[in-house]
Amino acid sequence: MARQALDLFDEGFQELTPSEFFRKNKQMLGFTGKIRSLTIVFHELITNSFDAAEEAGILPEIKIDLKRIGKDHYILRHQDNGPGIPEKYIPKVFCTMFAGSKFRNIQSRGQQGLGCSGCVLLSQMTTGKPVKVISGTMENGELKGVKMTLKMDVKKNQGLILEKEEVEVDGTGVCIELHFKDVSYSLSEQGAYEYIRRTMIANPHARIIFNDPTGNRYVFNRASDVIPPMPKEVLPHPWGVTADDLIFMAKHTDKRRFGSMLKSNLSRMSSKKIKELEELTGIDLNKRPKDMKWEEAEQIVEAFKKMKFMSPPTSGLIPIGEEQIEKGMKEILQPEFTATVTRKPKTYRGGIAFIVEAGIAYGGNSGRLVGDQRKAEIMRFANRVPLTFDAGSCAITEGVKSLDWKRYGIRDLENAPISIFVNVVSTNVPYLSTGKQSVSPEPEILGEIRQATMIVARKLYKYLRKKKAAKEEAQRAKIFESYVPVIIKQAALLAEREEPDYRELLDTVTRRAKLEILGGITE
Amino acid sequence: MARQALDLFDEGFQELTPSEFFRKNKQMLGFTGKIRSLTIVFHELITNSFDAAEEAGILPEIKIDLKRIGKDHYILRHQDNGPGIPEKYIPKVFCTMFAGSKFRNIQSRGQQGLGCSGCVLLSQMTTGKPVKVISGTMENGELKGVKMTLKMDVKKNQGLILEKEEVEVDGTGVCIELHFKDVSYSLSEQGAYEYIRRTMIANPHARIIFNDPTGNRYVFNRASDVIPPMPKEVLPHPWGVTADDLIFMAKHTDKRRFGSMLKSNLSRMSSKKIKELEELTGIDLNKRPKDMKWEEAEQIVEAFKKMKFMSPPTSGLIPIGEEQIEKGMKEILQPEFTATVTRKPKTYRGGIAFIVEAGIAYGGNSGRLVGDQRKAEIMRFANRVPLTFDAGSCAITEGVKSLDWKRYGIRDLENAPISIFVNVVSTNVPYLSTGKQSVSPEPEILGEIRQATMIVARKLYKYLRKKKAAKEEAQRAKIFESYVPVIIKQAALLAEREEPDYRELLDTVTRRAKLEILGGITE
Repeated sequence: MARQALDLFDEGFQELTPSEFFRKNKQMLGFTGKIRSLTIVFHELITNSFDAAEEAGILPEIKIDLKRIGKDHYILRHQDNGPGIPEKYIPKVFCTMFAGSKFRNIQSRGQQGLGCSGCVLLSQMTTGKPVKVISGTMENGELKGVKMTLKMDVKKNQGLILEKEEVEVDGTGVCIELHFKDVSYSLSEQGAYEYIRRTMIANPHARIIFNDPTGNRYVFNRASDVIPPMPKEVLPHPWGVTADDLIFMAKHTDKRRFGSMLKSNLSRMSSKKIKELEELTGIDLNKRPKDMKWEEAEQIVEAFKKMKFMSPPTSGLIPIGEEQIEKGMKEILQPEFTATVTRKPKTYRGGIAFIVEAGIAYGGNSGRLVGDQRKAEIMRFANRVPLTFDAGSCAITEGVKSLDWKRYGIRDLENAPISIFVNVVSTNVPYLSTGKQSVSPEPEILGEIRQATMIVARKLYKYLRKKKAAKEEAQRAKIFESYVPVIIKQAALLAEREEPDYRELLDTVTRRAKLEILGGITE
Repeated sequence: MARQALDLFDEGFQELTPSEFFRKNKQMLGFTGKIRSLTIVFHELITNSFDAAEEAGILPEIKIDLKRIGKDHYILRHQDNGPGIPEKYIPKVFCTMFAGSKFRNIQSRGQQGLGCSGCVLLSQMTTGKPVKVISGTMENGELKGVKMTLKMDVKKNQGLILEKEEVEVDGTGVCIELHFKDVSYSLSEQGAYEYIRRTMIANPHARIIFNDPTGNRYVFNRASDVIPPMPKEVLPHPWGVTADDLIFMAKHTDKRRFGSMLKSNLSRMSSKKIKELEELTGIDLNKRPKDMKWEEAEQIVEAFKKMKFMSPPTSGLIPIGEEQIEKGMKEILQPEFTATVTRKPKTYRGGIAFIVEAGIAYGGNSGRLVGDQRKAEIMRFANRVPLTFDAGSCAITEGVKSLDWKRYGIRDLENAPISIFVNVVSTNVPYLSTGKQSVSPEPEILGEIRQATMIVARKLYKYLRKKKAAKEEAQRAKIFESYVPVIIKQAALLAEREEPDYRELLDTVTRRAKLEILGGITE
């Protein structure tokens, strides 16, 4: 007997809040496996702290204490020196999913309103403990401290304040204390320690002090005191908007004419461009935004594509920079050779600006140690954030692996002592999953990753070729050094003369040869 | 100058609805790339139709028309024969994200309340067109039809009814019409056609008629008329609940005592077990659910682990079955050899039941065609649904690849004409991402995937060994056939006798040998 639709629906129909949804699907926040879960927590908290500090123009400094108080039971204390969170926003930041200050068109590490609240959700799900937050803010020139104990009301997607008091603080910043069970601290490639190490390669301007559960104290000092320029909010470029974007804008704008809305919501728009647009489309742009029809919005988008505009402003994009990447790699990997490149800005999907940077390190501690052999590693970053998981589906992996490495003197990439560093910088990195762990292989991004990697690979090739030549040259010199005395001796015998003193001359010759070789390598 | 926290927050703080969130992050619904986006749409609509039909006890039949009306502009009409959707639920099903009837503990293909509404969101974002829905339902023995035109109000996460009228329908079921731009129909491995083909391997009881945009009409008939047993809702097993689950239950139960709540919310609980639990924990289970503390809930969970329970009920798990998988593979792949296995139910994370099934097909049209060579393919399924993307991070890929295939007579898996089929069945498949495209590598699941694959691989090994032996045997027989006449002739000459008539005898001998070999192969 077929069951009736109404019964089926009345029995089980529900509407979930975002918190309820992710409580049932925590793997979508990246929380799968004990090691990975803890790494994701570190990731969310560190990126939030970096973003907050940099947006406020502060050099980030983070203190992390991770204590193990039972089997798989940890207390994490994470303190930053950012601008702090104003009291009224604390419950939303930590206990409401899809809430945040990061929805602007700005290059920031996090931007999904899931990070902090996701960590609180995991903590609560595994330990039932509330989150403790201390926030120090400057308000009208005065330092203000507040301490709050909060629970997440999952059914309501809201914070529940259990305790609140004013406290004295040393400076601005946020200190958060969370309990976790069912997580695990590990020194492996996907563990929390490695996450911090990679973070420091890409952020030589930061300082992190990490007390790990085994009693080790790691101090990652600044390798650079340069405050990275603050990323700026950038208006979308006309080439990058869709008809849906225009209709959405029109619905929520406070402008009274469609033309003025375009001017204030898009970059590179001027009155001249508005006029050009009107001529091309025949649409009256003086009409009210709400009267714009979908078909007209589509026509406008089509017209944009035919119009000339200056390329998108890239003031919102802050690459790490070739010099800084090199500093980071040298500090952490002590390699024999490095090469880095920061490419010029490009756009994908028609108008979203991005920059790709790449670095390569060879020898020393480059590569990952498997047994006692060093194997190649690809270090993936998006807006300076290490991507630790889902490597298989990531544009960076695809781009790097697609190179014909034999052409660059690497016969077997897998087994070479190489670290390849790639950072994708954008106001809008196209992540493949909610966990923000892999970059979508957009053709333009993939192309730039290949180009950048080729450039550094070519430099490595040159180095390796010279190194090989130098080695051969050295062997030849060695042969020279061994045979010359014998020849001279025999020649003197033959000529019935005395053996001349040739050592000084020989030294000069071979030393000069060696210098030439070295000069060639380091040039 | 450091910027102040309050300014930073007041400027940009927002709270998004699920629809707004996914409008900005459509890649998290799997919508990346033109081909993939369309495949995901097919996936969502087909799985919803299958689930609806089967839950109502109907053999699913789906008619799909995909028309191309412009460059990258398609109209999709998808009609099923399920129980239909009652009028009042239509706007929620199609226009509210995180709403659905699928949040029960039941084995269903979809279960996240994102599927249909995700497709509507993509349609609206790319074309601005509303969705048209016709739903036929049986209400009090009468067939009722309604036609609705809807838009999604993204800011409110709600449906907006533009038109509504009663219509006549031929039977129950849902017909949905959606416009899409920025998608693309493809015959490639990740395209919509291949998705349907794989679906039919795993669902031989279904029927799909597909009119593709190039004018082809594909009819995938039922290979089996067996209605799969209806999956049943299964209560969670005590070994599978967490302290958080118990606290959550306690908050939302209508029972007045904790003990009776446990009995009605968990499987395998009895008054005897409640008594045992009280003795083990010393907790009074007569107290009101709301008075249960986290620490007590943790103690209960700990005690559960020490108690003996019958294993979880598996009535909720409906595997495809060895015979049905074989039918599906033979129908679609015309292989030279197949082997299948359906393993017994196991549990992961302590109490979530699952079943792994595997099949292997060799020769014929097995494997994927690359150029003119057939290469191995791994066909991944979860609850009969093909998983098309994110293969790299999936437990199925990991499990299959981890086998030492050389031990099974496959020297080079990559280049063998083999299709490996794996289906993971569970009320709660642990997906790695929102797109539901890969299975999380839980140790128990990974172990079962390896076991199942080994079993079918061993059978293939036996077949290949016999085939090889048969080939050698046949060669030997051929030699026999060639030389015997010569030897007899020479022997006759030597003996100065006449050549005897040996042909009949020889035929009998070689025919018997051949039969023995064939018997060995098909045994």
